Amino acid sequence: MSALDYIRVVLVEPTHAGNVGAVARAMANMGVSDLRLVSPKDFPSAVASARAAGADHILENTAVCDCLFDAVDDCSLVIGTTARQRSIQWPQKSLENAMQLVSWQARAAKVALVFGRESRGLTNKELEMCNYLVRIPTDDGFSSLNLASAVLILLHELRKFVSKDDKSDVFDDQIDELRASSSEMAHFYDHLFKVLTKLEFSKGSTANLHRKLHRLFNRAWPTAQEIRMLRGILTAVDKALGDPGNDS
Amino acid sequence: MSALDYIRVVLVEPTHAGNVGAVARAMANMGVSDLRLVSPKDFPSAVASARAAGADHILENTAVCDCLFDAVDDCSLVIGTTARQRSIQWPQKSLENAMQLVSWQARAAKVALVFGRESRGLTNKELEMCNYLVRIPTDDGFSSLNLASAVLILLHELRKFVSKDDKSDVFDDQIDELRASSSEMAHFYDHLFKVLTKLEFSKGSTANLHRKLHRLFNRAWPTAQEIRMLRGILTAVDKALGDPGNDS
Repeated sequence: MSALDYIRVVLVEPTHAGNVGAVARAMANMGVSDLRLVSPKDFPSAVASARAAGADHILENTAVCDCLFDAVDDCSLVIGTTARQRSIQWPQKSLENAMQLVSWQARAAKVALVFGRESRGLTNKELEMCNYLVRIPTDDGFSSLNLASAVLILLHELRKFVSKDDKSDVFDDQIDELRASSSEMAHFYDHLFKVLTKLEFSKGSTANLHRKLHRLFNRAWPTAQEIRMLRGILTAVDKALGDPGNDS
Repeated sequence: MSALDYIRVVLVEPTHAGNVGAVARAMANMGVSDLRLVSPKDFPSAVASARAAGADHILENTAVCDCLFDAVDDCSLVIGTTARQRSIQWPQKSLENAMQLVSWQARAAKVALVFGRESRGLTNKELEMCNYLVRIPTDDGFSSLNLASAVLILLHELRKFVSKDDKSDVFDDQIDELRASSSEMAHFYDHLFKVLTKLEFSKGSTANLHRKLHRLFNRAWPTAQEIRMLRGILTAVDKALGDPGNDS
């Protein structure tokens, strides 16, 4: 069982059915499936299903509760979310620290991530049921996040601590083929500079031109096959210039 | 001016007006405002405005283009996004590494973040206009991200690097000079392919050769000055081949 299986998303009094569906989709994207709704205005709903875009399994298993307490009663860590600075003082963690704590706790116990009403978030009474409050970083001038966006960002951050086996995070420049060896590169540069000399291209400092071309092609870090292609082009230029015998 | 002001979000052929509005809202949340649409199906639209939830200033200034090239022509770094593993090999960066690179480049030049069609992403031809491809980490079983969700996650990650002003970055190819714009790159490729045609170099598939050369030179991510140097070489070859009039 993955830590993601211990994560519950709780929406308090969501007004728009579309948002509930979008939340289900975001949860499915991030590999989380336990959703509870506190007194939703419109659920179940065809609008929610449409916006879920295939995450119906989540909506079908969504429990509806009368109050936040019922939605989180079996959870040992409850994280509340807010998009704005609250007037009430409450223990607050940064998004990343909170998700690290969640990932650690969710190895063995249920954790709830609680999202308030679209219009006015969580009440102070609901806040009191949370261990920590997390504020999602947004632009100061436009902090009103869509409900599904808030869920998505939390789960996206959570995944970083849960799944360390994402392969796309490892390779900067994912090419399976063999890179050209230093010797192949050296032969390529010889070939290139010979053609440039024949073209009488190097007007100014040759050393300077050579350094610039080295910098460019070394940065590209070409594969052996790419170097063969480039040398094919150089050979074609060479031949066109009237010296087909050159095969350095 | 913040690095966020240099970021452009490009949506290629978005089908649903609601998605365009949701993207505008996500951009406003994250402090980014430059949006371009390539052949949108339904824009402008009241649905888009409703979903923008107050981010109308972004929709009002959204430019509509006929093709991806027009949308990114003045950008010196173009990042494509995908939710799935592509069959075509293309330089790929992890989400975080890509956003770090973007934040660094966006201190002085325009950067485009490109999102494909809801149904089938970017074509291979569009991919060739990108320097790097980024795959957004999702659950293997449910990788279809809503368009606005994909935009939100990229910008959320980008903000982490922008709000920090750490200049001691770790790039292996830290060059202060301005990179060539997409338009300068396109002129270079035109020039290169024209010379190759004259050399009768393309024996097999031209498309295949073009893709390979795109992959190599896009990976090198040349500076404007380097592109001028390469075009100088092409002009010298051109002249030697007996057509000094060619100055495309």
